[in-house]
Amino acid sequence: MTATEVRMAPSRRLPSVWLHMVGLSLLFVAAGMVLCALIDAVRSGHAVGALMASAGLSAAAGALCFRGSRIPADIRPKEVFIAVSMSWLATSAAGALPFLLSGLIGRIDNALFESISGFTCTGSTVLSSADFDAASPGVLFWRQLTQWFGGMGIIVLAIAVLPFLGVGGLGLIRAEAPGPTSDRLAPRVKETAKRLWLVYLGFTALSIAALMATGIGWFDSAGLAAALVSTGGFAPEAASVGAYDSTIVELILVVGMIYGGASFTLHYNALRGRPGVYARSSEFRMYLGLILAGTAVVTLLLFNDGFGFGSAVRSALFNVVTLATSCGFGNATAAGSAGDFAVWAPAAQVVLLLFMWVGGMTGSTSGGIKVLRAQVMGRVAWREVIRARLPHVVHPIKQGSEPLAEPVVNRIGGFVMLYFLIVISSALFVTLAGTDVSSGLSGAVSAMGNMGPALGDAGPTSNFGIYSAPERALLAALMLVGRLEVFPMTLAVVAALQRFRSATRRWVPHRTGS
Amino acid sequence: MTATEVRMAPSRRLPSVWLHMVGLSLLFVAAGMVLCALIDAVRSGHAVGALMASAGLSAAAGALCFRGSRIPADIRPKEVFIAVSMSWLATSAAGALPFLLSGLIGRIDNALFESISGFTCTGSTVLSSADFDAASPGVLFWRQLTQWFGGMGIIVLAIAVLPFLGVGGLGLIRAEAPGPTSDRLAPRVKETAKRLWLVYLGFTALSIAALMATGIGWFDSAGLAAALVSTGGFAPEAASVGAYDSTIVELILVVGMIYGGASFTLHYNALRGRPGVYARSSEFRMYLGLILAGTAVVTLLLFNDGFGFGSAVRSALFNVVTLATSCGFGNATAAGSAGDFAVWAPAAQVVLLLFMWVGGMTGSTSGGIKVLRAQVMGRVAWREVIRARLPHVVHPIKQGSEPLAEPVVNRIGGFVMLYFLIVISSALFVTLAGTDVSSGLSGAVSAMGNMGPALGDAGPTSNFGIYSAPERALLAALMLVGRLEVFPMTLAVVAALQRFRSATRRWVPHRTGS
Repeated sequence: MTATEVRMAPSRRLPSVWLHMVGLSLLFVAAGMVLCALIDAVRSGHAVGALMASAGLSAAAGALCFRGSRIPADIRPKEVFIAVSMSWLATSAAGALPFLLSGLIGRIDNALFESISGFTCTGSTVLSSADFDAASPGVLFWRQLTQWFGGMGIIVLAIAVLPFLGVGGLGLIRAEAPGPTSDRLAPRVKETAKRLWLVYLGFTALSIAALMATGIGWFDSAGLAAALVSTGGFAPEAASVGAYDSTIVELILVVGMIYGGASFTLHYNALRGRPGVYARSSEFRMYLGLILAGTAVVTLLLFNDGFGFGSAVRSALFNVVTLATSCGFGNATAAGSAGDFAVWAPAAQVVLLLFMWVGGMTGSTSGGIKVLRAQVMGRVAWREVIRARLPHVVHPIKQGSEPLAEPVVNRIGGFVMLYFLIVISSALFVTLAGTDVSSGLSGAVSAMGNMGPALGDAGPTSNFGIYSAPERALLAALMLVGRLEVFPMTLAVVAALQRFRSATRRWVPHRTGS
Repeated sequence: MTATEVRMAPSRRLPSVWLHMVGLSLLFVAAGMVLCALIDAVRSGHAVGALMASAGLSAAAGALCFRGSRIPADIRPKEVFIAVSMSWLATSAAGALPFLLSGLIGRIDNALFESISGFTCTGSTVLSSADFDAASPGVLFWRQLTQWFGGMGIIVLAIAVLPFLGVGGLGLIRAEAPGPTSDRLAPRVKETAKRLWLVYLGFTALSIAALMATGIGWFDSAGLAAALVSTGGFAPEAASVGAYDSTIVELILVVGMIYGGASFTLHYNALRGRPGVYARSSEFRMYLGLILAGTAVVTLLLFNDGFGFGSAVRSALFNVVTLATSCGFGNATAAGSAGDFAVWAPAAQVVLLLFMWVGGMTGSTSGGIKVLRAQVMGRVAWREVIRARLPHVVHPIKQGSEPLAEPVVNRIGGFVMLYFLIVISSALFVTLAGTDVSSGLSGAVSAMGNMGPALGDAGPTSNFGIYSAPERALLAALMLVGRLEVFPMTLAVVAALQRFRSATRRWVPHRTGS
């Protein structure tokens, strides 16, 4: 804060991006909790008080932060990173209150895990079937709503904030998603966010309507829709989508997941009367191609493994889509049933593990490294094959019809490597307490990619209670790191450490600065 | 072949790089087989005839190719790639003869697998304990010798041929391994090869002497040394190095493996009186650092798992080194004993799996992506973290004190991605027949990195007989692809397909060219 800025301040509010964003987020969260308290009252639940108390606490904290701070005139990228990280942390903490106060989850760490899993649109749960039976409807609905709020935040983050800041090299890819060229972050974000949220709201309303038409009731329809449009993956039933055992429900969800895992920029442009944007997007073509190819391969593998053809197609399509979009719904009716991919043939599990790495498209609410980065890395690999034959020819990497600048290609490579290293080193820690290699590795891949289920013991009919408490803490941290595309979280940690260090230095006057 | 070249031809020999190289390789192989026949006679084996017949066939084929061809005046990179690939294929085919003719291995595919595993210095075996008992000494020695021949070829390939052709971007890294700047491939290769083979021969002699000093006999000493200096990993005993259960033997092998997994360029320069080259090489420092860190972590994990401290250190050091150098000896005395890492704690297995990906240094006989490439990729990943904080500063990747050119960084990224994609898609096929995910994935990683043992059911006390025949065929192909650093093999296949296509076209005159 420079002297000039202080003089320019219109009030005595603290100029702080992160305090302001945290405040705003908490106010949204409080409103959601009030809605859930109403639903709980309507469904004769026993958690109206717990939800209202959570709402009150969140609103008080939110109002304090929001009214006590203002957006400074000049925003630096670092401040945005910190604000984004703090918002997710604060809403996750507030979001844990209903679970704790209603008595659904007794331990603070587990309540935080569930809340983080929701706000990051991951959908890994610590709840057992018994917990679902004991849960009050309003709290279950709150669990669904965390994802919907998370999705709102991610869309702004993924489309308006991160690319603008050039994270992972995506900001420099102009060929497929040309954006406004303004140098000021705030107005751009506000305007883009408004448009995208309209798409998001419309998508939500349409999903609720389609699901209600199948006859599964408004409560489940709205709950599923909240998890669907945000590619979250929590379901209001213990058996997830398997509880309905309905092909039509699964088909609606498949279509919705594919839509939700695709770029919201494309959706927005298509809705403005340019449906051709889908066909012109090479990332979209690859995204659909991967889903189709994955479904075909898994169908064959399941068929070969003794599934009936119809059952093989249904299980393959639903589960490939659910992982290719990082949604993470399950359609297994019971442990070991057709949709329980933890017991599928190993080759089919390897296919699913690949989809867990990749995830959906950039500009969507899905996780993973994203189809675009996977596509660029595939082209980089193939270029080496070509280059060994024609070593003296320049081979630019193309995305769509435009060649990508080499620094962009490099940065995408750096992102993918960083992502890979974080997952692998996390897998190491997750297996420390004795979890087997398959569950440990897939748990880390799943958390970082905001998938939901993992393989092995943490498959779609199990829950993340199989991991020890410290393992779950690491997985929750991975969800946040993966959700925010790695950098905001790491930079917030670095910045916090620096502030701590400089604060310590101030209080130790005898120490000389380096 | 241009008209000028034909006019210049000194004889009617066919100007063909690959025929000439195949011929030369087969003559070497034949000489090795004669040596093994002698050893078989001395050790009263029953395979003297089989070995002499193999030698005769190989020599005849070799002489025909060698005498009937000559190196053309002008060599193009593609021809070198093809020649290298053909040489490995031809020697592997010839190398299978002793196994088949002596009756040790009944099936052609298994004999080829064993031979490819030897010539690629992998060391994965299809032999069971019973096979070792039935084997004639000369044939077992031949099995060891395949690795030694493979190692000779790899050193030339890795140091003189591949970097010169710019494979995987290594050819452009001049900071650490400055080489002659001649534009002519042949003289450079010849001279470099001579020097390096001297180092290799000296290393072999020293290893035999050190091992004989422990009292394990000349046969086992020479056999182990052949597998040691080439980081092959076959052992003349069924229980591998576990058969000796000797700390001193294991220590000698650990030192030898570390030496063998390091760059032969460094060794050569050090032997010329410049031992400081080791300390100045950042790849060497990282190589040693990784081994030390890996050993420390695995020791702690094993200690934590109930191992005695001494046993933990011994098992950790030997097995980390054996995989970090892609040698693949085993020191397990029996299935489930201390050295059997297939039953270690999952976290320890994840560490080993990482070493299987990385392997040893560039310019050595070890496999994997190599420490240098892993190091560069790690720096590329870290750069993205720094860049998110300081987006407008240029951050070159440094190797040693020199910044690397971005195209080099890009090509290394391309190599690593290609390597990764090949392993993952192979793992998919290896799990097709029902092999579990851990055995399938680690089998592909192990084969591509020329390690030897895998995890799961194909661990150090098991053998690759657990894979089905088509899976083994794919793994053998992976060994070749990984051994030749991916490109020679893929390009040879592409070139062969093109030749086949143009040959077909010639015989179908009605078809018009595209």
